Amino acid sequence: MPEIQGFKNIRIVLVNPSHPGNIGAAARAMKNMGLSSLALVEPEDFPSPVARGRAVSAVDILEAASITSSLREAVKDCGLVIGASARSRRIPWPVMNPVQCAQKAIAGCQNNNVALVFGREDSGLSNEELQLCHFHVQIPTGKDYTSLNLAAAVMVICYELRRELDSVEGKTELEEDEYWDVEKATSQQMEHFYAHLEKVLIKIDFHDPENPRQLMHRMRRMFGRIRLDIMELNILRGMLTNTEYHIKKNHPGSQANNSD
Amino acid sequence: MPEIQGFKNIRIVLVNPSHPGNIGAAARAMKNMGLSSLALVEPEDFPSPVARGRAVSAVDILEAASITSSLREAVKDCGLVIGASARSRRIPWPVMNPVQCAQKAIAGCQNNNVALVFGREDSGLSNEELQLCHFHVQIPTGKDYTSLNLAAAVMVICYELRRELDSVEGKTELEEDEYWDVEKATSQQMEHFYAHLEKVLIKIDFHDPENPRQLMHRMRRMFGRIRLDIMELNILRGMLTNTEYHIKKNHPGSQANNSD
Repeated sequence: MPEIQGFKNIRIVLVNPSHPGNIGAAARAMKNMGLSSLALVEPEDFPSPVARGRAVSAVDILEAASITSSLREAVKDCGLVIGASARSRRIPWPVMNPVQCAQKAIAGCQNNNVALVFGREDSGLSNEELQLCHFHVQIPTGKDYTSLNLAAAVMVICYELRRELDSVEGKTELEEDEYWDVEKATSQQMEHFYAHLEKVLIKIDFHDPENPRQLMHRMRRMFGRIRLDIMELNILRGMLTNTEYHIKKNHPGSQANNSD
Repeated sequence: MPEIQGFKNIRIVLVNPSHPGNIGAAARAMKNMGLSSLALVEPEDFPSPVARGRAVSAVDILEAASITSSLREAVKDCGLVIGASARSRRIPWPVMNPVQCAQKAIAGCQNNNVALVFGREDSGLSNEELQLCHFHVQIPTGKDYTSLNLAAAVMVICYELRRELDSVEGKTELEEDEYWDVEKATSQQMEHFYAHLEKVLIKIDFHDPENPRQLMHRMRRMFGRIRLDIMELNILRGMLTNTEYHIKKNHPGSQANNSD
């Protein structure tokens, strides 16, 4: 596989956004996910302190944004153009979901400039603008309310780009065993623990080996599910030991009632 | 598989949100993805016209939101609590990515109330609040700017819930062949087209069958890639036919230069 170039050639294009807050929030979403190239087509109110406020630490993306007067101009150097589309159009166009969009964009950006295009807050992209796109991407929604906020849509698409890039770069989340701070208990340590537990449960008259009613079975299932680490095991062993000590001291013999 | 109950038992919990705009945007993200149950723990400014404005058509979610004075109270009836966490903590906790979170939540909500908990805009969830959670979920980010806007984080988590629910309900996106409005051309129709195309290319002196230089090979690869539908095929056949007609009328014989 050729070396992955990250998001170098991927551009987020906002067509005719009316609310500067959405431009700022889109820039923040981009920077959160590691993207940097923003193009604005005829923004209604830009630059704007509202956009800067919502961008927080992504003001650099706003300052570097390119501004054009048409989508055609914003994507003229792009070999792959994907447009966000909420609705089905009269003439069907090849449609992708956000995962497919991210795969196509990450693969495509190795040798091409790639544009991901988002339309107006109220009316999306025009039919003419949608026809400048090779593909359309639709974000799945529930039935009752299908219109996403512009910055929310940018967030979802950028999130899937991040996931896809992490995936092709071979980055996977750490498994619990890799990030856990304490070694897990071994089988033998657990067997000693179960023996200790059973001994104490008998002493406190909670458990009758002649009529076990699956108690130890359930305890094994429970502790098996949580996979104790050694520190947790030692804490539990300490509790059992102290329990034994207090039984001996205060209740010689087995006086306590079985509370089961 | 038991019947899937959708998002009935899933609750989004926002702890101590300071900006009412984020509450409204979170409600909109929820409704976009089909969720409806919102719980607010000590919101600083709620109800608020700003929240209503950002919720747009999700005002019903704001109006039905429950308000509590502690996270403990907000999740007291929940059998599964997952908290959004940006940072690694001193004591590691089981961590999931948004996909794993969605799988756990959709599976868990069939028999339990499930809470997905989001912290303050500036400081997230406290250690004590994080310890009320069975699991933590982390949204992957780039390196330079890891702090997501609150509503953006809710958007990502709700989007993955939607995807997971669609997946367990067996909803898959339509394949191109299912939503396309015109039948695709058959192999035989394509062979007739290629024969027609080659004939015209010879007539206009663009193609020399004695020295084909892979021209038809490339044409087959190109049209194969886009899988013409019958209407597109007929349009192209019409172009070829009209070309032939004009060649006969204006240029009897083969007078045109090969422009290759």
